[in-house]
Amino acid sequence: MEPKALVLDPATLQPNCSSGYPEPYRSRVLPREKRALGDAFGLARIGVNLTTLMPGKESSMRHWHTHEDELVYVLEGELVLVTDAGEQVLSPGMCAGFAAGVPDGHQFLNRSDHPTVYLEISNRDEADSVFYSEADLLWNQPGHPGRYTRRDGTPY
Amino acid sequence: MEPKALVLDPATLQPNCSSGYPEPYRSRVLPREKRALGDAFGLARIGVNLTTLMPGKESSMRHWHTHEDELVYVLEGELVLVTDAGEQVLSPGMCAGFAAGVPDGHQFLNRSDHPTVYLEISNRDEADSVFYSEADLLWNQPGHPGRYTRRDGTPY
Repeated sequence: MEPKALVLDPATLQPNCSSGYPEPYRSRVLPREKRALGDAFGLARIGVNLTTLMPGKESSMRHWHTHEDELVYVLEGELVLVTDAGEQVLSPGMCAGFAAGVPDGHQFLNRSDHPTVYLEISNRDEADSVFYSEADLLWNQPGHPGRYTRRDGTPY
Repeated sequence: MEPKALVLDPATLQPNCSSGYPEPYRSRVLPREKRALGDAFGLARIGVNLTTLMPGKESSMRHWHTHEDELVYVLEGELVLVTDAGEQVLSPGMCAGFAAGVPDGHQFLNRSDHPTVYLEISNRDEADSVFYSEADLLWNQPGHPGRYTRRDGTPY
Protein backbone atom coordinates (compact mmCIF):
# COMPACT_ATOMS: atom_id res chain seq x y z
CA MET A 1 0.00 0.00 0.00
CA GLU A 2 1.23 3.48 -0.89
CA PRO A 3 2.07 5.40 2.30
CA LYS A 4 -0.41 8.20 3.03
CA ALA A 5 0.68 11.80 2.46
CA LEU A 6 1.62 13.54 5.69
CA VAL A 7 0.80 17.12 4.62
CA LEU A 8 -2.31 18.41 2.92
CA ASP A 9 -3.89 21.61 1.65
CA PRO A 10 -7.61 20.95 2.31
CA ALA A 11 -8.49 22.95 -0.83
CA THR A 12 -7.18 20.00 -2.85
CA LEU A 13 -9.71 17.60 -1.25
CA GLN A 14 -13.01 16.78 -2.95
CA PRO A 15 -15.78 17.82 -0.52
CA ASN A 16 -18.58 15.49 0.54
CA CYS A 17 -21.75 17.43 -0.25
CA SER A 18 -24.28 14.75 0.75
CA SER A 19 -26.10 13.85 3.98
CA GLY A 20 -27.27 10.50 5.29
CA TYR A 21 -30.34 12.12 6.88
CA PRO A 22 -33.77 11.19 5.57
CA GLU A 23 -36.05 14.03 4.59
CA PRO A 24 -37.32 16.42 5.92
CA TYR A 25 -33.99 16.74 7.77
CA ARG A 26 -31.62 16.48 4.80
CA SER A 27 -32.87 19.73 3.24
CA ARG A 28 -32.23 21.58 6.48
CA VAL A 29 -28.46 20.87 6.34
CA LEU A 30 -27.71 20.86 2.59
CA PRO A 31 -25.96 22.40 0.76
CA ARG A 32 -23.05 21.76 3.11
CA GLU A 33 -19.46 20.79 2.27
CA LYS A 34 -17.38 18.47 4.44
CA ARG A 35 -13.72 17.79 3.71
CA ALA A 36 -12.58 14.74 5.65
CA LEU A 37 -9.09 15.72 6.80
CA GLY A 38 -8.60 12.77 9.14
CA ASP A 39 -9.65 10.24 6.50
CA ALA A 40 -7.19 11.79 4.04
CA PHE A 41 -4.38 10.79 6.39
CA GLY A 42 -5.80 7.33 7.06
CA LEU A 43 -6.69 8.19 10.66
CA ALA A 44 -9.11 5.68 12.22
CA ARG A 45 -9.20 6.92 15.83
CA ILE A 46 -10.14 10.57 15.24
CA GLY A 47 -12.43 12.28 12.76
CA VAL A 48 -11.60 15.84 11.67
CA ASN A 49 -13.82 17.54 9.10
CA LEU A 50 -13.37 20.97 7.55
CA THR A 51 -16.99 21.99 7.06
CA THR A 52 -18.61 24.86 5.15
CA LEU A 53 -22.19 25.63 6.19
CA MET A 54 -24.26 27.84 3.95
CA PRO A 55 -26.47 30.77 5.09
CA GLY A 56 -29.77 29.64 6.57
CA LYS A 57 -28.60 26.05 7.09
CA GLU A 58 -28.18 23.81 10.19
CA SER A 59 -25.01 21.82 10.91
CA SER A 60 -27.15 18.85 12.00
CA MET A 61 -30.33 18.21 13.93
CA ARG A 62 -29.90 18.70 17.70
CA HIS A 63 -28.14 15.55 18.92
CA TRP A 64 -25.71 14.06 21.45
CA HIS A 65 -23.29 11.12 21.27
CA THR A 66 -22.98 8.24 23.71
CA HIS A 67 -19.27 7.45 23.10
CA GLU A 68 -17.78 10.31 21.11
CA ASP A 69 -16.54 13.67 22.36
CA GLU A 70 -16.96 16.57 19.95
CA LEU A 71 -15.19 19.90 19.57
CA VAL A 72 -15.98 22.60 17.00
CA TYR A 73 -13.52 25.41 16.19
CA VAL A 74 -14.74 28.32 14.04
CA LEU A 75 -12.38 29.47 11.27
CA GLU A 76 -14.52 31.92 9.24
CA GLY A 77 -17.93 33.47 9.76
CA GLU A 78 -20.39 33.04 12.60
CA LEU A 79 -22.30 30.15 14.13
CA VAL A 80 -25.20 30.08 16.56
CA LEU A 81 -25.05 27.15 18.97
CA VAL A 82 -28.38 25.77 20.22
CA THR A 83 -28.49 23.64 23.39
CA ASP A 84 -30.64 23.39 26.51
CA ALA A 85 -28.80 26.56 27.64
CA GLY A 86 -30.38 28.49 24.76
CA GLU A 87 -28.47 30.21 21.97
CA GLN A 88 -24.80 31.25 22.02
CA VAL A 89 -22.93 32.99 19.20
CA LEU A 90 -19.46 31.85 18.09
CA SER A 91 -17.17 34.02 15.98
CA PRO A 92 -13.81 33.04 14.39
CA GLY A 93 -11.33 31.65 16.91
CA MET A 94 -14.05 30.50 19.30
CA CYS A 95 -14.85 26.89 20.03
CA ALA A 96 -17.51 24.67 21.58
CA GLY A 97 -17.17 21.24 23.18
CA PHE A 98 -19.54 18.40 24.00
CA ALA A 99 -18.54 15.46 26.18
CA ALA A 100 -19.80 12.00 25.26
CA GLY A 101 -22.82 10.86 27.25
CA VAL A 102 -24.16 14.28 28.25
CA PRO A 103 -27.79 14.23 27.08
CA ASP A 104 -28.00 17.89 25.97
CA GLY A 105 -28.49 17.93 22.21
CA HIS A 106 -26.54 20.52 20.24
CA GLN A 107 -26.65 21.95 16.74
CA PHE A 108 -25.19 24.99 14.98
CA LEU A 109 -27.10 27.43 12.78
CA ASN A 110 -25.71 29.76 10.16
CA ARG A 111 -28.00 32.78 10.48
CA SER A 112 -25.55 35.06 8.65
CA ASP A 113 -25.37 36.06 4.99
CA HIS A 114 -22.06 34.28 4.39
CA PRO A 115 -20.78 30.70 4.48
CA THR A 116 -19.29 29.66 7.81
CA VAL A 117 -16.18 27.48 7.90
CA TYR A 118 -15.27 25.37 10.93
CA LEU A 119 -13.44 22.28 12.09
CA GLU A 120 -15.44 19.38 13.57
CA ILE A 121 -13.31 17.10 15.74
CA SER A 122 -14.19 13.83 17.47
CA ASN A 123 -12.84 10.48 18.53
CA ARG A 124 -14.27 7.48 16.69
CA ASP A 125 -15.98 4.66 18.52
CA GLU A 126 -18.01 1.90 16.86
CA ALA A 127 -20.14 1.67 20.00
CA ASP A 128 -21.33 5.23 19.51
CA SER A 129 -25.07 5.87 19.25
CA VAL A 130 -26.67 9.23 18.55
CA PHE A 131 -29.83 10.54 20.15
CA TYR A 132 -31.75 13.45 18.66
CA SER A 133 -33.50 16.03 20.82
CA GLU A 134 -36.31 17.02 18.49
CA ALA A 135 -36.03 15.15 15.20
CA ASP A 136 -37.64 11.71 14.88
CA LEU A 137 -34.20 10.14 14.46
CA LEU A 138 -31.89 7.69 16.20
CA TRP A 139 -28.51 6.49 14.89
CA ASN A 140 -26.83 3.12 15.35
CA GLN A 141 -29.30 1.57 17.75
CA PRO A 142 -29.09 -2.12 18.77
CA GLY A 143 -30.37 -4.18 15.84
CA HIS A 144 -29.87 -1.29 13.41
CA PRO A 145 -26.11 -0.79 13.08
CA GLY A 146 -25.07 2.11 10.84
CA ARG A 147 -28.67 3.17 10.16
CA TYR A 148 -31.14 5.86 11.05
CA THR A 149 -34.33 4.69 12.72
CA ARG A 150 -37.44 6.46 13.97
CA ARG A 151 -38.14 6.67 17.67
CA ASP A 152 -40.64 3.83 17.29
CA GLY A 153 -37.74 1.64 16.11
CA THR A 154 -38.69 1.43 12.44
CA PRO A 155 -35.83 2.04 9.98
CA TYR A 156 -35.89 4.83 7.40
CA MET B 1 -20.64 19.45 39.94
CA GLU B 2 -21.11 22.64 37.95
CA PRO B 3 -21.80 21.80 34.30
CA LYS B 4 -18.93 22.70 31.98
CA ALA B 5 -19.30 25.73 29.71
CA LEU B 6 -20.17 24.76 26.15
CA VAL B 7 -18.60 27.76 24.40
CA LEU B 8 -15.17 29.27 24.88
CA ASP B 9 -12.93 32.03 23.58
CA PRO B 10 -9.47 30.43 23.90
CA ALA B 11 -7.98 33.85 24.70
CA THR B 12 -9.65 33.56 28.12
CA LEU B 13 -7.74 30.33 28.93
CA GLN B 14 -4.54 30.38 30.95
CA PRO B 15 -1.80 28.82 28.76
CA ASN B 16 0.41 25.97 29.92
CA CYS B 17 3.95 27.23 29.34
CA SER B 18 5.84 24.25 30.76
CA SER B 19 7.18 21.00 29.34
CA GLY B 20 7.58 17.58 30.92
CA TYR B 21 10.76 16.96 28.91
CA PRO B 22 14.05 16.64 30.75
CA GLU B 23 16.92 18.82 29.58
CA PRO B 24 18.47 19.22 27.05
CA TYR B 25 15.14 18.74 25.26
CA ARG B 26 13.02 21.15 27.31
CA SER B 27 14.97 24.20 26.16
CA ARG B 28 14.42 23.24 22.54
CA VAL B 29 10.61 23.57 22.84
CA LEU B 30 10.17 26.38 25.38
CA PRO B 31 8.90 29.07 25.41
CA ARG B 32 5.74 27.49 24.01
CA GLU B 33 2.12 28.13 24.99
CA LYS B 34 -0.53 25.41 24.99
CA ARG B 35 -4.17 26.14 25.68
CA ALA B 36 -6.01 22.92 26.44
CA LEU B 37 -9.35 23.41 24.67
CA GLY B 38 -10.56 19.84 25.12
CA ASP B 39 -9.80 19.85 28.85
CA ALA B 40 -11.71 23.11 29.23
CA PHE B 41 -14.85 21.29 28.10
CA GLY B 42 -14.17 18.21 30.24
CA LEU B 43 -13.43 16.04 27.21
CA ALA B 44 -11.65 12.79 28.11
CA ARG B 45 -11.62 11.01 24.74
CA ILE B 46 -9.96 13.70 22.61
CA GLY B 47 -7.21 16.21 23.27
CA VAL B 48 -7.27 19.54 21.42
CA ASN B 49 -4.57 22.09 22.14
CA LEU B 50 -4.24 25.59 20.72
CA THR B 51 -0.47 25.94 20.63
CA THR B 52 1.81 28.93 20.01
CA LEU B 53 5.36 28.03 19.02
CA MET B 54 8.00 30.74 19.15
CA PRO B 55 10.62 31.48 16.45
CA GLY B 56 13.52 29.03 16.51
CA LYS B 57 11.65 26.48 18.62
CA GLU B 58 10.59 22.85 18.05
CA SER B 59 7.05 21.56 18.72
CA SER B 60 8.50 18.39 20.27
CA MET B 61 11.33 16.00 19.64
CA ARG B 62 10.71 13.71 16.64
CA HIS B 63 8.29 11.05 17.90
CA TRP B 64 5.45 8.68 17.03
CA HIS B 65 2.54 7.29 19.07
CA THR B 66 1.48 3.66 19.43
CA HIS B 67 -2.24 4.26 20.13
CA GLU B 68 -3.01 7.90 19.34
CA ASP B 69 -3.69 9.49 15.96
CA GLU B 70 -2.54 13.08 15.58
CA LEU B 71 -3.63 15.91 13.31
CA VAL B 72 -2.14 19.42 13.23
CA TYR B 73 -3.96 22.35 11.57
CA VAL B 74 -2.04 25.62 11.07
CA LEU B 75 -3.92 28.82 11.96
CA GLU B 76 -1.21 31.51 11.78
CA GLY B 77 2.39 31.55 10.59
CA GLU B 78 4.47 28.77 9.14
CA LEU B 79 5.68 25.36 10.30
CA VAL B 80 8.32 23.03 8.90
CA LEU B 81 7.44 19.37 9.32
CA VAL B 82 10.35 16.92 9.72
CA THR B 83 9.81 13.20 9.05
CA ASP B 84 11.61 10.40 7.24
CA ALA B 85 10.30 12.06 4.04
CA GLY B 86 12.45 15.13 4.79
CA GLU B 87 11.10 18.64 5.34
CA GLN B 88 7.70 19.98 4.25
CA VAL B 89 6.43 23.53 4.81
CA LEU B 90 2.91 24.20 6.11
CA SER B 91 1.23 27.60 5.82
CA PRO B 92 -2.10 28.70 7.35
CA GLY B 93 -4.99 26.44 6.41
CA MET B 94 -2.73 23.44 5.80
CA CYS B 95 -2.67 20.34 7.94
CA ALA B 96 -0.63 17.25 8.68
CA GLY B 97 -1.72 13.86 10.00
CA PHE B 98 -0.01 10.92 11.68
CA ALA B 99 -1.71 7.57 12.17
CA ALA B 100 -1.05 5.67 15.39
CA GLY B 101 1.53 2.92 15.08
CA VAL B 102 3.42 4.24 12.05
CA PRO B 103 7.06 4.36 13.18
CA ASP B 104 8.04 7.57 11.36
CA GLY B 105 8.83 10.20 13.96
CA HIS B 106 7.56 13.73 13.32
CA GLN B 107 8.21 17.17 14.73
CA PHE B 108 7.49 20.75 13.65
CA LEU B 109 9.99 23.60 13.57
CA ASN B 110 9.26 27.31 13.59
CA ARG B 111 12.05 28.67 11.39
CA SER B 112 10.21 31.97 10.85
CA ASP B 113 10.53 35.31 12.64
CA HIS B 114 7.00 35.16 14.07
CA PRO B 115 5.08 32.93 16.47
CA THR B 116 3.16 30.14 14.77
CA VAL B 117 -0.30 29.19 16.03
CA TYR B 118 -1.83 25.77 15.37
CA LEU B 119 -4.30 23.21 16.64
CA GLU B 120 -2.99 19.83 17.85
CA ILE B 121 -5.68 17.13 17.81
CA SER B 122 -5.56 13.53 19.03
CA ASN B 123 -7.61 10.77 20.59
CA ARG B 124 -6.62 9.82 24.13
CA ASP B 125 -5.62 6.29 25.02
CA GLU B 126 -4.02 5.24 28.31
CA ALA B 127 -2.23 2.44 26.49
CA ASP B 128 -0.34 4.97 24.37
CA SER B 129 3.44 4.88 24.38
CA VAL B 130 5.70 7.33 22.59
CA PHE B 131 8.92 6.48 20.78
CA TYR B 132 11.46 9.14 19.88
CA SER B 133 13.48 8.99 16.66
CA GLU B 134 16.61 10.80 17.81
CA ALA B 135 16.25 11.97 21.41
CA ASP B 136 17.20 9.56 24.22
CA LEU B 137 13.57 9.46 25.36
CA LEU B 138 10.72 6.99 25.74
CA TRP B 139 7.29 7.76 27.22
CA ASN B 140 4.96 5.49 29.19
CA GLN B 141 6.90 2.26 28.83
CA PRO B 142 5.93 -0.90 30.76
CA GLY B 143 7.02 -0.43 34.36
CA HIS B 144 7.28 3.35 33.94
CA PRO B 145 3.71 4.63 33.50
CA GLY B 146 3.40 8.37 32.89
CA ARG B 147 7.18 8.90 32.90
CA TYR B 148 10.04 9.60 30.55
CA THR B 149 12.81 7.02 30.49
CA ARG B 150 16.08 6.73 28.61
CA ARG B 151 16.50 4.09 25.94
CA ASP B 152 18.45 1.98 28.42
CA GLY B 153 15.29 1.91 30.59
CA THR B 154 16.48 4.23 33.37
CA PRO B 155 14.00 6.91 34.40
CA TYR B 156 14.78 10.62 34.21
